[in-house]
Formats: sequence, structure tokens, C-alpha cells
Amino acid sequence: MSKTAGIVIIGNEVLSGKTQDINSHFFCAELRQLGVDVQKIATIPDEIELIGQEVVAFSQRFDWVFTSGGVGPTHDDVTIDGIAHGFGLKVIRHPDIERRMRQRLGAEVNEARLRMANVPEGAELLATEALFAPVVKIHNVFIFPGIPKILQERFHAIKERFRDAPYFLKIVYVRQGEGVIASLMNDLLLKYPNLLLGSYPVLDIADYKVKVTLESKDSDYLDQALQRFLSSLPDGAVHRIQ
Amino acid sequence: MSKTAGIVIIGNEVLSGKTQDINSHFFCAELRQLGVDVQKIATIPDEIELIGQEVVAFSQRFDWVFTSGGVGPTHDDVTIDGIAHGFGLKVIRHPDIERRMRQRLGAEVNEARLRMANVPEGAELLATEALFAPVVKIHNVFIFPGIPKILQERFHAIKERFRDAPYFLKIVYVRQGEGVIASLMNDLLLKYPNLLLGSYPVLDIADYKVKVTLESKDSDYLDQALQRFLSSLPDGAVHRIQ
Repeated sequence: MSKTAGIVIIGNEVLSGKTQDINSHFFCAELRQLGVDVQKIATIPDEIELIGQEVVAFSQRFDWVFTSGGVGPTHDDVTIDGIAHGFGLKVIRHPDIERRMRQRLGAEVNEARLRMANVPEGAELLATEALFAPVVKIHNVFIFPGIPKILQERFHAIKERFRDAPYFLKIVYVRQGEGVIASLMNDLLLKYPNLLLGSYPVLDIADYKVKVTLESKDSDYLDQALQRFLSSLPDGAVHRIQ
Repeated sequence: MSKTAGIVIIGNEVLSGKTQDINSHFFCAELRQLGVDVQKIATIPDEIELIGQEVVAFSQRFDWVFTSGGVGPTHDDVTIDGIAHGFGLKVIRHPDIERRMRQRLGAEVNEARLRMANVPEGAELLATEALFAPVVKIHNVFIFPGIPKILQERFHAIKERFRDAPYFLKIVYVRQGEGVIASLMNDLLLKYPNLLLGSYPVLDIADYKVKVTLESKDSDYLDQALQRFLSSLPDGAVHRIQ
């Protein structure tokens, strides 16, 4: 069985259409590469109660949970408070983060900035080469800042701990439409029920109409399924295999 | 009170990182423009049980629910089955859609294609100038196809039914960092507790460090809050107001 993951995107700016979230796609693509099965994404507002409920539900359901957003110094940064509340933990000021902030900022340290040193009690800090905003781990939850550039840097610093057996993927670009090949895919799944089979119609491309994805963690199984699928297609149906 | 909405994105291709979902951002931006408050997005796999659970939960919690994806003719298109299952409804073949398909496709109609005529019993069809894939409405749920171009077309065809009192928005680009202005925003919210106030740090731009968004459905209230915020900022702090 693959390890499973859930992603929680926290931010009114996404829900109100001001910002397009790109962090969930980054997490999904990276985790898939690592062999991890992302099973759900939830995008929720900057509200303590809702954050607590969602993160705890994800924590119970998936092996790992990744959150993005809501960890700055302002009134709408309530992710730490929300997650601590959800798990029934106190929020404490982490001495290592506070010390680094005071060293770097000196007299410019203020109460707002020190909120960025807050963590749920018992949290572990990861990617600590980062000055102020390490990844905060509490139970199986990894708390990331929302700014994509920082989130990506932090994820790359810790990603090897999530590596699992890889997925193998083949893509077949088919000239016929989904209406024509649907029954062939149904037949394929009867023979290869564990195959992860996706079918995606494409508009406005002359060379093919459907992108068919075949995936498995067992490369022999994948190859056999691919051969069977190819041999079931009408002559000339395959535009390209990737 | 604003009308509320939830968005359910259905598709393994998003969770496995193969496709970046752009439909949720489209829905969020369009609904905000219409004055609707989007409160949650869930992205879930192509699985009947999970689709039913999520859509019914959203239907109970929000005024309107918008789904995207999983309405084609293939094995992984199970949105209609999932939503019908969740509401305890039968799936029926809609006679209007079936008739159009037979008129257009003639002998090329097959069982797979006819799946696209399936709807939950009691569903209403909207945006029916579309040939095969109208918006399917069941209770307060609006079921859209996943292909962005088609989804956008269909949404524009029906969006006026969702129009509510508009949000008014002002954006202030501030030269100081969040750590400096956080306490000013806290003070502002004490005086204007109903203000929707967002604070977004920006990296790599020389002219300003934070984008502050002020929003309300009451334009007088918004103007007063804006004036108070501006007068609280240090001299020269404002780069631009929009």
C-alpha cells in the first residue's frame, strides 16, 4: 500500500479569487514523484475553528498532512492557533525561533513578529537552516508558509523523508474520441483491475483526441496492461506513446 | 448575509499532479464578482462513495454547490453516479439529452456515449443550448464538465441567477513589512470588526512589501475604514492605492 497524504490550503485570498493557489499542484506533483498517494485537498478560510477541524480530520485519515498558509505575523495568520486548538494543545513560543529572531532583528523585534515564533506545544522544527520560518511538524502534520517560493524551498529540504516505491506511468495519445475507446478501457480494467487508468479528452488539438494514462507501482503489470491496451486499439489509433 | 458557495473538484488527474486545476480559481473569482462568498473547495478522487459524501455535506452547509469533472463517457466518469448515490436518487437517462445525441451522432451512438445522458432522477437541465453537456442541477448542486473552456462557457450562460449584493474592494500597497504594520491592522479591526481585511507579503518587488486588501459590502463603511487605516500609517508608507 502506498503512503497517503492530504493537503490543506489555508487562505481567504484563494477562496475570494484574489490569488490562484499553486501550492497544492506543487505538493501533488512532488508527492506523486516520490510515490505518495495524495487523496484529498481542502481549501479553507483563515478561521481557527475550521482549521482545527479540517487538519485533525485529515491527520486521522491520511499518513501525512501538508498545510500551506496563515503563518505570518498578522491578524489573519491563525494556522498555528487553529492546529493547536484542533489537537487540544497549547501554543508556546519556541525558544530557538525567538532567539534567532532577536539575533537578526535586534530592537526591531515586536509582538507581531514574535507571533512567528509560536508553535503548538510538542512541535518539532524541520528545515531549520531557514531563518524564521522552518517547517513546523506536529504529529503527522507539516506546516508550511504560503509564499510559493519559500514553501518550495522548504519542501525540497525535507522531501526525502517521504520517498516511497515509485509509480510507473505510460501515456498513450489516441486519435479516436472517448466515446469510441470507452469500452476498450472497460475491458482492460476487467483484466487489470489494479491498473490506475485515466482518460482525458483534449480539445483543439488536431493530432489526437484523448490522452490515456496507465499507472502502477508494478512495472511488469504496467507493461502487460499497456501491451493489451495497444493491441485492442484499432489500426492507426495511436498518435504517440510516452 | 451573503449567499455562500462550496466548490467540489473531482478528478484523480489533479490529485496525482498530472493536471493543474484552474476551474476552482475561475469559480472563486467569478462568484466573488457576483457577490457570493465561497467558503470551501474540496478536491477529491473519481470515487462514487467519496463524491456522494462530499457533495451532500457541501449541499447541507452552503447555499450553492458547484462541481467540476467526471461527466464524460468513460470508466472514471462517476460524478453523476456519485451525486445520485449521495442523495439516495436513481440515475436515469434524460430523454432530451438522449434525443439530441441520437439526432447528432446517428449510428455512432453507443452505450459509452449514452452515459453522458445520465442524470440523477429529478435533475433540471440548464444552459441547454449546449448540445450534449448542459449544466445538470440537482437540489442546490450545479454539475459542470471538467474541461475549462466548456465549464467557463456554461457558467457564463447561467451566472446571473447567482448575482448578489457586490463586494467593494480597496487595495493598499505598503512599503513597510507586515511586522511593522501588523499592530495597525489589529487596531483597525477593533474599530471596524466587520471589515474583511487581508495582508499579503510580497517578495522580490522593490516598491512595496505588503498588499493590504480591505473589503465590505457596505461602501461607506469601507471608505471610513480605508481613511482610518491610511491615517494610521507612517508618512510615506503608501506606495499605491487601488
